[in-house]
Amino acid sequence: MNNFVWYNPTRIIFGKDTHKNVGEETVKYSRNILLHYGGKSIKATGVYETVTKSLREAGVHFTELGGVQPNPRLSMVYQGIELCRKENIDFILAVGGGSVIDSAKAIAAGVPYDGDVWDFYAKGVKPQKVLKTGVVLTIPAAGSESSDGSVITKEDTQDKCSCTTELMFPQFAILNPELCYTLPEHQIRAGGADILSHVMERYFVPNRNTDLSDRLCEGTMQALMENLPKVLEERQNYDAWAEVMWTGNVAHNGLLGKGREEDWASHGIEHELSGIYDIAHGAGLAIVFPAWMKYVYKEHPERFVQFAERVFGIGKEGKTEDETCLAAIEALEAFFHRIGLPTMLQDAGIGREHFELMAEKACRNGKLGSFKPLTKEDVKAIYETAW
Amino acid sequence: MNNFVWYNPTRIIFGKDTHKNVGEETVKYSRNILLHYGGKSIKATGVYETVTKSLREAGVHFTELGGVQPNPRLSMVYQGIELCRKENIDFILAVGGGSVIDSAKAIAAGVPYDGDVWDFYAKGVKPQKVLKTGVVLTIPAAGSESSDGSVITKEDTQDKCSCTTELMFPQFAILNPELCYTLPEHQIRAGGADILSHVMERYFVPNRNTDLSDRLCEGTMQALMENLPKVLEERQNYDAWAEVMWTGNVAHNGLLGKGREEDWASHGIEHELSGIYDIAHGAGLAIVFPAWMKYVYKEHPERFVQFAERVFGIGKEGKTEDETCLAAIEALEAFFHRIGLPTMLQDAGIGREHFELMAEKACRNGKLGSFKPLTKEDVKAIYETAW
Repeated sequence: MNNFVWYNPTRIIFGKDTHKNVGEETVKYSRNILLHYGGKSIKATGVYETVTKSLREAGVHFTELGGVQPNPRLSMVYQGIELCRKENIDFILAVGGGSVIDSAKAIAAGVPYDGDVWDFYAKGVKPQKVLKTGVVLTIPAAGSESSDGSVITKEDTQDKCSCTTELMFPQFAILNPELCYTLPEHQIRAGGADILSHVMERYFVPNRNTDLSDRLCEGTMQALMENLPKVLEERQNYDAWAEVMWTGNVAHNGLLGKGREEDWASHGIEHELSGIYDIAHGAGLAIVFPAWMKYVYKEHPERFVQFAERVFGIGKEGKTEDETCLAAIEALEAFFHRIGLPTMLQDAGIGREHFELMAEKACRNGKLGSFKPLTKEDVKAIYETAW
Repeated sequence: MNNFVWYNPTRIIFGKDTHKNVGEETVKYSRNILLHYGGKSIKATGVYETVTKSLREAGVHFTELGGVQPNPRLSMVYQGIELCRKENIDFILAVGGGSVIDSAKAIAAGVPYDGDVWDFYAKGVKPQKVLKTGVVLTIPAAGSESSDGSVITKEDTQDKCSCTTELMFPQFAILNPELCYTLPEHQIRAGGADILSHVMERYFVPNRNTDLSDRLCEGTMQALMENLPKVLEERQNYDAWAEVMWTGNVAHNGLLGKGREEDWASHGIEHELSGIYDIAHGAGLAIVFPAWMKYVYKEHPERFVQFAERVFGIGKEGKTEDETCLAAIEALEAFFHRIGLPTMLQDAGIGREHFELMAEKACRNGKLGSFKPLTKEDVKAIYETAW
């Protein structure tokens, strides 16, 4: 097991009706906040009304900034920074999914910084101070509600970059599974793939002697795979949503990667896809991950054999090691198909025209990942495998 | 799934050599601390020397209070409070296992309090302010290094009471598996039983729809049961110790009980045993838990069937439900025997003379537990089952 630090101070407030008390929770930190959200959905579902009512009752003044788009954009971040400075705001409440939260974190880092906030994302500059943030989560997927990171896209260059710092942990995150009832089907599917990928990126690593982390990862994958089909079948199944939402949080709160290296190659390879094409990050991962697996599994087949046995109950008997590994990858593809996600690029309407460019961008900082460190040629071959 | 709050701000610093930097970590909080520890073992193993060297190098002045005994005592807590006040100390570093940490937390709560610190333990008074604490863990067992609780024994009345408050989370806990190499065998055994019990107390609950928590509990139990025998066989097996130490932390950091009620009846029933007899808490649990299981399993047999299947791989085929449940309890007893712990009272040299008194004390605040709420008569019957 590798040495590690495990630290996650975000307070998770989980369950029915919990978002009705967001005002009480927020006022512990500030009485003058930015209320940051996405499109019209939180107004259509009544979440906006409930949240603003609670803020008012708690005596919290809020300035609104809506309109965050998927793959949140730097221009909106600049807008938020300016607004916070003008209004002397010192706390940002994000109501939404990963995009809104990531945008909120970027604004929170930018407000107290004299330079360009993009320095934190593209130049590796570390924030020294970040405004505090809180979250009302409406989409279980990204895990950003209690992560230390944020991903922002610079529109003009299509660059999608991340910033990671302990200062970005939200103070609290309110997770009410009832808020998921109205999610559109494509978001549920993509969210599920994103959650599963967050676990797999921690699970498929070259390390050995990570027994507890292995077990926790395997259990989390099983809980997700058991419950995601249930919420697709029965959109108001509270108990199944509670499992999906809690799984989405645990998958990315940092715990499952402790003692390991983690391997975020698939995330990087996917980022280039959703950077160019109109595809959700999670839907892209359902395509990239099986292709990555087929390309790399021979490096550490024992890990795929364990995945086969413990997660899918696929026995080794009567199979070669190769067959067991491939059976596990097929079972994963079958899960993605079951929740309605294609696992090949052409089924998502994506052609081969940008493989070269995407592979180059994915490897702009050197080789990708640790399970098998990937060169530009490897990444291109993975795109080919997915086609 | 029940509504819940998940919050644990303790920074876990895990791995080889980590205790050598305790001074750097401590000086972030204070330059004038109480160094609290147990007997001579930390001096014999060199931990004392390493820790005090690191504190000196970081410019941290420390006042020492050693001599904490297992089942830490209120008289020592009073002594610590007086010492801290006299020396204007505002931070306590606990170097040891659960007893030392619990004693440190009690002192930390008592220093800023005008009344008697025992009010927090016996009268349910909630601390408003608690000094900050840090931990160098030497015994993986109690999980107190990142828990919000502390258990103290009042010697004259033999009362063992607990206090729980978020203010008691340590700021940091340093976990170096190498420090476990020199633990005496009986502490390893008892520690293992304590860790396993912390998971079982969260697992054997009446709640349904706790899929993720179930899976995380099952994985944690498996990791512990795989690795504890390894450290008993090979005392310097770093990787196995790392699993045991990390498991001990995860078992009691609060995560595994989320969305459930938890059932601490066995802990309560055991506390009365180790309150009267000279038996380690963990060793007592190895006796109480199987007896509790035999007495209550019929309330929710489906939970024991799941335990049988997922943790021990015991299939249902060809067995009645009862037989499957009992096979799981037998498998648990076999594990305790394998690590050298008796599971019956007479094998631990304990007689029937105090069953009545212990049952009465265990139920002094009403019925115990939620899996099957236990009366005094039930508790007495459980002691009888263990005899």
